[in-house]
Amino acid sequence: RSGEMAKSTQLIDNDVFRAYATYTAIVLLKMMLMSLVTAYYRITRKAFVNPEDTASFGKGDSAKKYLRTDPDVERARRVHLNDLENIIPFVGIGLLYALSGPELSTALLHFRIFTGARILHTFAYLIPLPQPGRGLSWAVGYAVTFSMAYKVLKTVLFL
Amino acid sequence: RSGEMAKSTQLIDNDVFRAYATYTAIVLLKMMLMSLVTAYYRITRKAFVNPEDTASFGKGDSAKKYLRTDPDVERARRVHLNDLENIIPFVGIGLLYALSGPELSTALLHFRIFTGARILHTFAYLIPLPQPGRGLSWAVGYAVTFSMAYKVLKTVLFL
Amino acid sequence: RSGEMAKSTQLIDNDVFRAYATYTAIVLLKMMLMSLVTAYYRITRKAFVNPEDTASFGKGDSAKKYLRTDPDVERARRVHLNDLENIIPFVGIGLLYALSGPELSTALLHFRIFTGARILHTFAYLIPLPQPGRGLSWAVGYAVTFSMAYKVLKTVLFL
Repeated sequence: RSGEMAKSTQLIDNDVFRAYATYTAIVLLKMMLMSLVTAYYRITRKAFVNPEDTASFGKGDSAKKYLRTDPDVERARRVHLNDLENIIPFVGIGLLYALSGPELSTALLHFRIFTGARILHTFAYLIPLPQPGRGLSWAVGYAVTFSMAYKVLKTVLFL
Repeated sequence: RSGEMAKSTQLIDNDVFRAYATYTAIVLLKMMLMSLVTAYYRITRKAFVNPEDTASFGKGDSAKKYLRTDPDVERARRVHLNDLENIIPFVGIGLLYALSGPELSTALLHFRIFTGARILHTFAYLIPLPQPGRGLSWAVGYAVTFSMAYKVLKTVLFL
Repeated sequence: RSGEMAKSTQLIDNDVFRAYATYTAIVLLKMMLMSLVTAYYRITRKAFVNPEDTASFGKGDSAKKYLRTDPDVERARRVHLNDLENIIPFVGIGLLYALSGPELSTALLHFRIFTGARILHTFAYLIPLPQPGRGLSWAVGYAVTFSMAYKVLKTVLFL
């Protein structure tokens, strides 16, 4: 089966696909880091949601008081959900876009702007920066994904 | 590298893959539109969650009263989450399905029914239509994704 | 177009890709099952969120009392969200990993451990098992996805 293996390896040797793979791995890792940020705030703010998570703080009411919401925890969770809503469409549409034969320079421009915008969005949300900082960084990432979707539909449309 | 480029372009020239790319772009764009629907309700209902988003309404208590939940905002957010729970499995399993060599007509049937069901689901949820309108449209999309997963596992099973 | 069809079929004939497709279908189906678990708890606990879902229980206050949250429903929803946060990065990064030419045995090890960890995580969360049962099963899946992302970035890095 070495011939088939070589064939699938060729896809990853395509420069546009390599760029897609690189930036997709980066933004998915960034999204996954939000789990650690939320866990960090849950532990430092002592704000949990599952009773079994507070068992180490003792029994009864002494542990129950840690079953509460905390503004920093909720903020980190909103960043994570916003990442799910925006990074996943980028990954799906970006794959189709990378396979639709774009110019390497155009593709790199899309991937780099999206990645930069989402990293800015995370800082703008967590610090938080005054609006419209977060709103603009969100809109830039959104516009990049729309632009890739437009190129995909223009190239492959088959209804 | 022109040979490799041509190779990756061939995938997008496959009719089943082109149909997959078209319907995936459509349902992902539909999912992304939920961000705009939620933002529309947040602004028209003046119901925000981040203090920095209400800063333009003034300081102190005059702005604080807009940090509240609103039924229409929460409804739009539930549609968005339901899309994440259902459209993303379609995109992932659909890719494997498109690569598993289905008949073009069968594949188109799956993609079209799923896309139609999810658009109906959005209207049924937002209007809202009486049940079982929303439940049925959800179940149809769910069944289509299961049917594709069955075909994938039957074709490629390698544990 | 039979030549192109054959080409796209070759990807699915690659053993690593077949293993990826198999385990991806399994974990996405597992994630989708959470919709049924949540629906089961909503119906048996009579705890709904949409007014139109309680219409069959009568009108006015007799139906309104079922618009409430329930600990079992909320727990099932948290499992589902945790799946979205962890299984989707696996699917995206796993695809790139499968295309980056890993050894079949190494790839199988990653896919099997991840799938086992996520199934354990679901049981640990739903039963619930005492901590660190759920925490460890989460961390194992997380580490597998990081390991695949590291291999992808090492193989394809193109910034």
